[in-house]
Amino acid sequence: MSTQLDSLLSPASIAVIGASDNIHKIGGRPIHYMKQHGYAGTIYPVNPQRETIQGIPSFPSLDALPAVPDLAIIVIGGDAAVQAVRDCARLGVASAIVIASGFGEAGEEGKRQQDEMVRIARAANLRIVGPNSQGLANFGNGAVASFSTMFIEVPPKDGPVAVVSQSGGMAAMVYGLLRGQGIGVRHVHATGNQADVTVSELALAVAHDPDVKLLLLYLESLSDPDMLAQAAAVARARGVPVVAVKAGRTGAGQRAAASHTGAMASEDRAVDAFLARHGIWRADDAHALARCASLYLRGWQPSGRNLVVVSNSGASCVMAADAADTLSLPIAPLSDATQTALAARLPGFAATANPVDVTAALLTNSALFGDVLPVVAEDPSADLFLLDIPVAGMGYDVPRFARDAAHFADHAGKPIAVAAWQESVASVFREAGVPTFENAADALAAFHQLAGHQALLRIVAEEPPLPAAVATHPQAGKTHTLSEAASLARLAEAGVNVVEHVLCRTADEAVAAWQKIGAPVAVKASSPQVPHKSEHGLVMLHCNDADTIRRAFDGQTRTLASMQANCEGVLVARMTRGQRELMVGAHWDPTFGAVLLVGDGGKYVEVLRDTALLLAPATPAAVKRALSTLRIAPLLGGVRGDQPIDLDALCTLAASVGRMVHEARGAIASVDLNPVMAGPEGAVVVDALIEVATGDVAGR
Amino acid sequence: MSTQLDSLLSPASIAVIGASDNIHKIGGRPIHYMKQHGYAGTIYPVNPQRETIQGIPSFPSLDALPAVPDLAIIVIGGDAAVQAVRDCARLGVASAIVIASGFGEAGEEGKRQQDEMVRIARAANLRIVGPNSQGLANFGNGAVASFSTMFIEVPPKDGPVAVVSQSGGMAAMVYGLLRGQGIGVRHVHATGNQADVTVSELALAVAHDPDVKLLLLYLESLSDPDMLAQAAAVARARGVPVVAVKAGRTGAGQRAAASHTGAMASEDRAVDAFLARHGIWRADDAHALARCASLYLRGWQPSGRNLVVVSNSGASCVMAADAADTLSLPIAPLSDATQTALAARLPGFAATANPVDVTAALLTNSALFGDVLPVVAEDPSADLFLLDIPVAGMGYDVPRFARDAAHFADHAGKPIAVAAWQESVASVFREAGVPTFENAADALAAFHQLAGHQALLRIVAEEPPLPAAVATHPQAGKTHTLSEAASLARLAEAGVNVVEHVLCRTADEAVAAWQKIGAPVAVKASSPQVPHKSEHGLVMLHCNDADTIRRAFDGQTRTLASMQANCEGVLVARMTRGQRELMVGAHWDPTFGAVLLVGDGGKYVEVLRDTALLLAPATPAAVKRALSTLRIAPLLGGVRGDQPIDLDALCTLAASVGRMVHEARGAIASVDLNPVMAGPEGAVVVDALIEVATGDVAGR
Repeated sequence: MSTQLDSLLSPASIAVIGASDNIHKIGGRPIHYMKQHGYAGTIYPVNPQRETIQGIPSFPSLDALPAVPDLAIIVIGGDAAVQAVRDCARLGVASAIVIASGFGEAGEEGKRQQDEMVRIARAANLRIVGPNSQGLANFGNGAVASFSTMFIEVPPKDGPVAVVSQSGGMAAMVYGLLRGQGIGVRHVHATGNQADVTVSELALAVAHDPDVKLLLLYLESLSDPDMLAQAAAVARARGVPVVAVKAGRTGAGQRAAASHTGAMASEDRAVDAFLARHGIWRADDAHALARCASLYLRGWQPSGRNLVVVSNSGASCVMAADAADTLSLPIAPLSDATQTALAARLPGFAATANPVDVTAALLTNSALFGDVLPVVAEDPSADLFLLDIPVAGMGYDVPRFARDAAHFADHAGKPIAVAAWQESVASVFREAGVPTFENAADALAAFHQLAGHQALLRIVAEEPPLPAAVATHPQAGKTHTLSEAASLARLAEAGVNVVEHVLCRTADEAVAAWQKIGAPVAVKASSPQVPHKSEHGLVMLHCNDADTIRRAFDGQTRTLASMQANCEGVLVARMTRGQRELMVGAHWDPTFGAVLLVGDGGKYVEVLRDTALLLAPATPAAVKRALSTLRIAPLLGGVRGDQPIDLDALCTLAASVGRMVHEARGAIASVDLNPVMAGPEGAVVVDALIEVATGDVAGR
Repeated sequence: MSTQLDSLLSPASIAVIGASDNIHKIGGRPIHYMKQHGYAGTIYPVNPQRETIQGIPSFPSLDALPAVPDLAIIVIGGDAAVQAVRDCARLGVASAIVIASGFGEAGEEGKRQQDEMVRIARAANLRIVGPNSQGLANFGNGAVASFSTMFIEVPPKDGPVAVVSQSGGMAAMVYGLLRGQGIGVRHVHATGNQADVTVSELALAVAHDPDVKLLLLYLESLSDPDMLAQAAAVARARGVPVVAVKAGRTGAGQRAAASHTGAMASEDRAVDAFLARHGIWRADDAHALARCASLYLRGWQPSGRNLVVVSNSGASCVMAADAADTLSLPIAPLSDATQTALAARLPGFAATANPVDVTAALLTNSALFGDVLPVVAEDPSADLFLLDIPVAGMGYDVPRFARDAAHFADHAGKPIAVAAWQESVASVFREAGVPTFENAADALAAFHQLAGHQALLRIVAEEPPLPAAVATHPQAGKTHTLSEAASLARLAEAGVNVVEHVLCRTADEAVAAWQKIGAPVAVKASSPQVPHKSEHGLVMLHCNDADTIRRAFDGQTRTLASMQANCEGVLVARMTRGQRELMVGAHWDPTFGAVLLVGDGGKYVEVLRDTALLLAPATPAAVKRALSTLRIAPLLGGVRGDQPIDLDALCTLAASVGRMVHEARGAIASVDLNPVMAGPEGAVVVDALIEVATGDVAGR
């Protein structure tokens, strides 16, 4: 474990400041839980009113303790809590959990007190969890520094899962959902206001716990992405899947999060990209967070997504096939050998294709699942196996079905899941250790996650690690735009293929430039003050004679003068036709660093929004994967007689733009290239707008 | 009730052919169930081996019965079943349920036997359910002619829901899911192979049952849409919501359905359009079919979609807001008056915005939900109310929460749903009569359905009824294409706005046509044998001088000659520029009749697939709604300085095309108009291809 947080996760002694004899009070619960779950360290109740608390000698104050505790649980609130933190700092306590609420989340005065706590703690190297925290619970050693009611509602059992959450409610709910599936949970940690210790840092600590096999996170804000990236790297190295809810996916959710924990909104697609880049699977809610646990914990790592469905209902076969198609889980095409083997085992009137309908004959022949499963297990095209049982109960030999499914689970080396809505049926499978879901849709969603997560991790393993996003330039608001000429120059310097062009100061220069290019040209005024030129009539396309070019030059310089804008000159650029107008954009995000956007370009880019986002630096291969998710993706490959677009050129171009923004470390605020003309012959930037941090010398 | 099926749903006497004394055999179950559920009619067990069956006198044969029964349940299989049908027909039995499988679903011989049964029955006016049917169950009168195990697993209770399903498994599952929610179910019918009686016909019958308040259907095939439309009309008139699963939504599902029941694939979007047009809500699977029942049965008819979330967890507020946003359920903006009233009731540190977080203070103040709910109920912008309780249990006054929620449900006149994953919590709310869901995502999906279904029904009420799809022309395969000139003429006759054009037999005529049009023209060869002209160089655009037009005429006629294709002449058509190239298509579907497709047009229409489908005849208003679902919808309204497109003209044009195909009753196989040029000034067909049934005189 991370030594930094050892005093929180494995304290040798724990003081409870505000301890209570009542096991249902916040000051009583942790002591009760620690006694119940075998905490082997020393518990020091602090309560001046009592001699003993829950049978343990109580002390009047922190100063009265016989030794300095590793951890203090501060139950008292308001100024008394701040004083308790001060006492801890003075005595050299290593860490404190501040349970009380009414601080940062409750207005100005609370925020001031919270900041004061942090100041005191930082000065003394005291780590603080909370305030407004439900506490931390480690069932591996019984250090249950938490008051969660859920540990009474659903009895704890140590196990391979760690839950780390900003919200106490979500920590408790995910814990409860897992325990309801019979899954043991070691860590249940809630960070509350995160004045000091964050979900990311605790995630990093528990990722080192050798008994942890699955890490589930609930985040509302993401202030320390690099710490989370470290946690993900440790987990990947250990083969521990990480699944996270980052709430506030939508505008409505972000507004709710702002009023809940004051969480700053992040662009949600950047959150997606960040999590994906680090191999963290994103779940939508607490149920989705817990849903796939039983599959992960079997250690299955499917190499493909091909699904086999076995059911005793033809209708379930049809609906499962529908649901699988929606999730892009192909129905595995069974080989002739498999189908021949199935024919020998199935009732005469049953079809041998996948989905495999063993029919209602299951009622009279309980061996059918056991006969069929080993046969389909051997089919080379089959990756995932759903046993869908919409009807069972009296007359059905469910224990036998469960044994057959468990045998498959233990020996086939491939994932199996059961869908059974009847609790009397589902519980038999669950007790046999078979991952069991209430309905096929949930089971298939879990398969989609398991296989998708594996595929994601394979990609992450092939990609270079993402450097930390360290800004070295002033941020936020203080920016200015470069002229188009300067933007193009900056891009060319970074190795980005830009349109052939000349910046001309006179009409004669413009004509000469056209002659040199030897083809129709676009004439565009270049001024840092006028980033959007077409709206002002400052672009003339398809110019192919000297007169037109002179007229364009004169008109545009006059227009700029009338706008009192600086005129750097007029750009004369080769007219470029590509098969498709695409867009490449990039910007510096204060949380995630360089963010790259690729997509369909042209006039309606903001309306049609067919774009994909990824974090930079990104490899051309990663850009290609992003492009493949666009609606226009088929067009890039060439349809209706079109030649395929030179994707390598396009991806290299976009990757260079991402790298340029990454390496500028905030000096470049944004890059907007629209259109990038792409065709069979390559990709070239035709229009460029760069926004730089003001004061950056590189900004010119 | 429909008298036609009275003998099935309310039989005065029932014979069981193949009756068994063993209540767990198929021949024993129906008798057992009828005795258990108070069937007041006469039961005639038929079994030559026994004197009595389950205490009821048994008869050796159908002929030996003292009277002709209304209904015969045929449990015996194979040729004996066919003989039993023959006996029923001879004796004048009104209807029979053939339970045995091994007929139409099991190959050639079975199909032959099934056809024979139907032939015999039709001749004698005997109605048949099945074969391969689990049977029908009416808990309103105890006529439980079904062997479903589920009636043992989950005790029946008569109630307001009717379930009609092709699949016995799905009938049982939906029944079980409803009963698990405590909801009473009157009808549980499974039609099996549907050799005669279909789901649609039974749906029509039970829609007339005055005690039925909700109708749930599972369909794999949809062979009699007009019957289903009638059922939907009866249900609408009675205010009974109809929800249907039509399985086989996807290619994979349709292949599975074909092997399960031999169901013919329908174009799934046409199924969507058909169901929507009749106010039937489409659900994805059996769980979704049952999910919304508790909300429907309260009779709530929300007029809007604005959501209020109340929770004791801020994190749940955030995730619920995310989920609501994804489902397009806006978070209701609470009025100042509401927020002021909330502030007086909530803890000081709680926010008063929606979602309303009553915070963990709920643990110490059990009145909070009861304080908050009446306040938000009064807010005029609030339509739907979610009470999300991720954590409760010991220390929480859950019965009080449930009373407060039930009071709201009974008095507010607006829908409320509770999300609680802890069964100990959920059951308290459920027993108090409050619709309760395992998680917020399910509750919000149910709200989405309830509000969406209401909105759909309001639209259906405003639309003219859809005429039945009656083909009067030869179908399928035997079609030929019209030339472009003939296609345009046909459209113009139907009142569709087509491009100004002249069909020219000579180059002189072509030049004269151009002069008459007085603008640039397109020159296109017109031949019924060459529907796709551009691929053969038979289109020349932007012609604006006599020489070019002559050259185009000569070249195109020579090309046609070399292809040995008929040349009707050459079309000279005004070049038309619209703001956007759209497409309008229509075809005759053998099941649903005229189907209309509108969408983004141009070269990539098949790749980008931004189209919407509706059944014709459709009003222009319906076309407008369809267009509003397109990804390009914002462009039609005018963005980035564009003028809005004349939607009225476009919708009228599309509606006319739909009506034309509808009125042709199969004589027109398909119409493909791409592009239809649309702009602020109107919409006009530029390119037309019509395919007609061969032999149709109107086809020319």
